[in-house]
Amino acid sequence: MSEATLIDGRAEAEALRARVAADVAELKARHGLVPGLAVVLVGEDPASEVYVRSKGEQSRAAGMHSVTHKLPADTSQADLVNLVRQLNADPSIHGILVQMPLPPGLDEKAVIEAIDPDKDVDGLHVVNAGRLSQGLPSLAPCTPVGCMILLRQTLGDNLSGLRAVVLGRSILVGRPVAQLLLQADCTVTIAHSRTRDLASVCREADILVAAVGRPRMIPGDWIRPGATVIDVGINRVPFDDPAKAAEGRTKLVGDVDFKSARRVAGAITPVPNGVGPMTVACLLANTVTAARRIRGV
Amino acid sequence: MSEATLIDGRAEAEALRARVAADVAELKARHGLVPGLAVVLVGEDPASEVYVRSKGEQSRAAGMHSVTHKLPADTSQADLVNLVRQLNADPSIHGILVQMPLPPGLDEKAVIEAIDPDKDVDGLHVVNAGRLSQGLPSLAPCTPVGCMILLRQTLGDNLSGLRAVVLGRSILVGRPVAQLLLQADCTVTIAHSRTRDLASVCREADILVAAVGRPRMIPGDWIRPGATVIDVGINRVPFDDPAKAAEGRTKLVGDVDFKSARRVAGAITPVPNGVGPMTVACLLANTVTAARRIRGV
Repeated sequence: MSEATLIDGRAEAEALRARVAADVAELKARHGLVPGLAVVLVGEDPASEVYVRSKGEQSRAAGMHSVTHKLPADTSQADLVNLVRQLNADPSIHGILVQMPLPPGLDEKAVIEAIDPDKDVDGLHVVNAGRLSQGLPSLAPCTPVGCMILLRQTLGDNLSGLRAVVLGRSILVGRPVAQLLLQADCTVTIAHSRTRDLASVCREADILVAAVGRPRMIPGDWIRPGATVIDVGINRVPFDDPAKAAEGRTKLVGDVDFKSARRVAGAITPVPNGVGPMTVACLLANTVTAARRIRGV
Repeated sequence: MSEATLIDGRAEAEALRARVAADVAELKARHGLVPGLAVVLVGEDPASEVYVRSKGEQSRAAGMHSVTHKLPADTSQADLVNLVRQLNADPSIHGILVQMPLPPGLDEKAVIEAIDPDKDVDGLHVVNAGRLSQGLPSLAPCTPVGCMILLRQTLGDNLSGLRAVVLGRSILVGRPVAQLLLQADCTVTIAHSRTRDLASVCREADILVAAVGRPRMIPGDWIRPGATVIDVGINRVPFDDPAKAAEGRTKLVGDVDFKSARRVAGAITPVPNGVGPMTVACLLANTVTAARRIRGV
């Protein structure tokens, strides 16, 4: 039995960053436009600090203008919203990202809604969700954008008429990826915790996007032979090896049971190093898109 | 062979109007709140005049405050937007509807975006589309709301886990009805002109919502036995009787071939008198919803 092609998210992310860097260079040379990304971090969550640093480094490496605002954990809602408003008004900034989660007491929804939708490179503003669902130009959340790039690299630009099944209906992944697949003219099914006979529904999929956050819940025999599987799940589980598990060691697995799925699928993203690396690269791409639209070039 | 139950849109619309009237009476008595609907008509399109009159009559009959603004066809964009802004600021108005289509030269999208989303009882504002797609409280377009009421009257309040197939992906019907079905915990598939093997996709449906605008395109053998069929299509076609057709006489038919579908479906909406009558009744219901939210009661 042949094994599925591995979709290499690290290589695709690197290629995307190179395209972004080329776009940035061209925007500078032709229009004197330097796309600018502002990242706001409130408090000292160690994981968030790693993400924020990586976003800053990658945007600078792509030749972008990059600023990071670190605010203390006891920052007030008003001060945070004021900073967002200043960034909205700052012509050197085209993308604004407030790192989530925010410390307790701050209203995440209100902070997101304070961001100018045209600078909302995380694609979380209600106006961007609306534009996306009305098929208008929008900024879509980064992970779904990354899923689409991986699909197009794997299947070609034309996804029209393919049956896509999205497992999970989160605002961050499931719902927007379903919209993007619909925009690409797929026949789209959204399945979720209440779906009956999930195995049969999954087996209809030419494209299966799993975004539920349950480790290895999708076995290989739920997958249509030859299907393209995009596994968005990142779940930490104990090692299979009891000795390692006993030491408390853990590893990352997806929502798909990779071992059995790999024998059935045509192409599949591994976890880690599948969808994950695409997310920050798509943030840079969204910032370039935002800069172009704001400047009208 | 048993025939499908007919879903009586006229009766359901009447029942809904009665519920709205009861809600209005209660809001008046308990909170001194009279829900107010403003309808704006630009130009003299005869069909639009009929709709606008009907909206005014039905809202008054339900005990609501109703105002109709008729503007000449040569009204400027600025004057129209100014009127919308006045209505946004008017505390006696909770719902604003600008009758579409607008005369040539006026920007429909910009007019809709000028409406306060909390008063957008047509559910067309991008913010309402975004709220709907993020699962937040929203005002959804009237026809999809009507479809959901008919479904719940037919199948009961619990639609969880049913497979719903929506044919068509318009901003007015297909996309929002898919969102509402997802909110009701259905497993939702959106099919459209690019869908391959549409017959098989339709046959998966416990709930089939047809909103494509192609007369009788869905034959009975595309329908799963016992399925509930909601036919949103309203298509004018020549009479089947050649003599009548030769006189140029026409009639209304749906997207579903009613005669053959009726023998397979469990329940089906006729055309006319299925979904159609629900739309204005849902406009009244949306206005009551808007009034409650604005007042916080």
